Amino acid sequence: MSSYMETLGNRAKEASRQAARLGTTEKNKGLLSVAEEILLEKEQILAENQIDIVRAEENGMKPALVDRLRLTEERLEDMAEGLRQIASLDDPVGEVLSMKNRPNGLRIGQKRVPIGVIGIIYESRPNVTADAFGLCFKTGNAVILRGGSDAINSNKAIVRAIKVGLRKVRLPQDIILLVEDTDRNIVNEMMQLHGVIDVLIPRGGKGLISSVVKNSTVPVIETGTGNCHIYVDETADLGMAVEIIENAKTQRMGVCNACESLVVHSNIAEQAIPLIARKLKCHNVEMRGDELACALCEDIIPASQEDWGTEYLDAIISIKTVNSIDDAIKHINTYNTGHSETIITKDYDHALRFQDEIDAAAVYVNASTRFTDGFEFGFGAEIGISTQKLHARGPMGLLALTTTKYVIFGNGQIRN
Amino acid sequence: MSSYMETLGNRAKEASRQAARLGTTEKNKGLLSVAEEILLEKEQILAENQIDIVRAEENGMKPALVDRLRLTEERLEDMAEGLRQIASLDDPVGEVLSMKNRPNGLRIGQKRVPIGVIGIIYESRPNVTADAFGLCFKTGNAVILRGGSDAINSNKAIVRAIKVGLRKVRLPQDIILLVEDTDRNIVNEMMQLHGVIDVLIPRGGKGLISSVVKNSTVPVIETGTGNCHIYVDETADLGMAVEIIENAKTQRMGVCNACESLVVHSNIAEQAIPLIARKLKCHNVEMRGDELACALCEDIIPASQEDWGTEYLDAIISIKTVNSIDDAIKHINTYNTGHSETIITKDYDHALRFQDEIDAAAVYVNASTRFTDGFEFGFGAEIGISTQKLHARGPMGLLALTTTKYVIFGNGQIRN
Repeated sequence: MSSYMETLGNRAKEASRQAARLGTTEKNKGLLSVAEEILLEKEQILAENQIDIVRAEENGMKPALVDRLRLTEERLEDMAEGLRQIASLDDPVGEVLSMKNRPNGLRIGQKRVPIGVIGIIYESRPNVTADAFGLCFKTGNAVILRGGSDAINSNKAIVRAIKVGLRKVRLPQDIILLVEDTDRNIVNEMMQLHGVIDVLIPRGGKGLISSVVKNSTVPVIETGTGNCHIYVDETADLGMAVEIIENAKTQRMGVCNACESLVVHSNIAEQAIPLIARKLKCHNVEMRGDELACALCEDIIPASQEDWGTEYLDAIISIKTVNSIDDAIKHINTYNTGHSETIITKDYDHALRFQDEIDAAAVYVNASTRFTDGFEFGFGAEIGISTQKLHARGPMGLLALTTTKYVIFGNGQIRN
Repeated sequence: MSSYMETLGNRAKEASRQAARLGTTEKNKGLLSVAEEILLEKEQILAENQIDIVRAEENGMKPALVDRLRLTEERLEDMAEGLRQIASLDDPVGEVLSMKNRPNGLRIGQKRVPIGVIGIIYESRPNVTADAFGLCFKTGNAVILRGGSDAINSNKAIVRAIKVGLRKVRLPQDIILLVEDTDRNIVNEMMQLHGVIDVLIPRGGKGLISSVVKNSTVPVIETGTGNCHIYVDETADLGMAVEIIENAKTQRMGVCNACESLVVHSNIAEQAIPLIARKLKCHNVEMRGDELACALCEDIIPASQEDWGTEYLDAIISIKTVNSIDDAIKHINTYNTGHSETIITKDYDHALRFQDEIDAAAVYVNASTRFTDGFEFGFGAEIGISTQKLHARGPMGLLALTTTKYVIFGNGQIRN
């Protein structure tokens, strides 16, 4: 007998075959119908969300997390608008990327197709539920969602609305399946559905992601953690450096593309560090530096070895001084998480070397790390930011939710 | 203190930074130098191979496997020629796939770059050693090779020659590292080097591959297993069907793109099955069929349920009859391994439906499954055939050994 999770997986697999056959018009109709339904059912969704909120507060959840969990009328409007935007994006499915004739007359093309069944494991952010559905559905996939148990009532209500929206335009409802059993063992079962779930995308903190990487036999796309650096080269325009650092560190503290660490060339440190420190102090950013950094500004406290590898997601930054661009590259390649890194420089060779040699998804010259994001890159909504190298790297839009297959047209060819 | 495997991993990571900086000319020079060196050292390599062969025969290894293990002067010539061919292929590294200006003036490009450190786990085929090195090195990666313990002396001799070839043109030798410790626990350690090894590619039988998928925290590309079908539609040209089936089943029996199962429309079964059976009988292929197939030809013995999912890699084929293309698609999607599938038909709609709905890396109309291969597809040498959907699907040439990074050129942009 199949377990709860196996049954869910097989239903999703069956639905994924149907989803893959849908045309763009049908899928867009589905997305718009779901957007409408979410607004029609907003009373019920908000009421269910309220149950989660009350329980979370009773359990002593931190206010910042309660805020992420909370839905409002405005947030539901945003959710619906997000789905409408996904409907307006180009459908990548079905495009033949190249079609070549081989000498034996075979025509071999590579066609973009849905992946199949996508599993998303996330924390207590109910907005992910609608977003992830929208992106997976637009690309012809079925999706299995496993959200945080704190958001279970909100997620159930949202998924119910999505299914009603799909039903109203006669689309298969198993295209979205919510894991309603909040038992932790269920997640482990989900991670073992190799051959049923085609890819797992964990969205959340470091702990969640590394647990999925460690335990899953299903292929995983790692997202999110960003220990992002800004390197102030000796020829940097200091005004630009201060502005970019202020933006990258303080425009939004808790996000993966925020700057967590500065690397400063020692030849410019004496001028640069006090200027930067003054600006960061206005934002109450705690600064932890190496010996030279501490000597140059009394607001900087000593950093420990651990600081260099820490993604604070908070009002803290580390400051390291180096004697050359080689040392800067080496330091960053040692401690970064492959997310976003910036050099601020006027030196042409250093700009190119930094871009060539830094190992990360996004490597910037003279711009804020905060731009690493699907919208800013012009892809529209994103399912996450991949920090691994296989399949997709950087912001993942619709394309990352597709694969390809070779389609070969023959007329009797056999191999010699 | 680091373990043997961690030390090896860190050396490879360091070498991968150097490899990534090499230009195409330097890499090609390295490949040609290595090709020459393998021929210069052929006496030693053959002598070491002889040690492996003798031991394998003493241990009672099957003749077919001993043959795969055996090197000859001709096979070493092929090995060198393979490296020269890789040198002649276009280098994909460094290409910027697209570069767009955003409204804020940021120029965002996507650049093809090496993956970093590639781990290959394979069985006792010493030719893989040189092939895998060539493909990984041409794409600017470092490679860690873990071959079967039966081939350890051959592999050591080949890797020594490769390192000498690299040294002669002053290239870093840690670009190729052989796991010389044949303890099985070492493989487990290798599979846990997440963050050091960027991708693992197992090459070999089903057991090897599923063990790597199960135990690895490093991302894996699954290769190889092929339960490939040929579906004879009711409008098939029977002459063409017989020829393609003969070719796909018997041209080479032990390969992953050989046909393992026939699916025949019942309306054409009475004419088709005896014709096909007569041809396969000439090649001594054992035929295992469902009830109708057995009734139509006395040479066909009853298939068990297990047969439908079996990759024989041998002179055996299963034969299933169906009443519609829907049933054919359903049967194939249930039992296939996502490798190569063919429909033989004159019906336009059926041809397109088969290509759209069959879930596999390569879907053919009216041609042999045996064409799924890097050379036949025009990519040159291949590192394997991916049967998974992430990153690469189908024959993997040089492109599959690269990833991309976003390179962003700004002049002070900050995010609002």
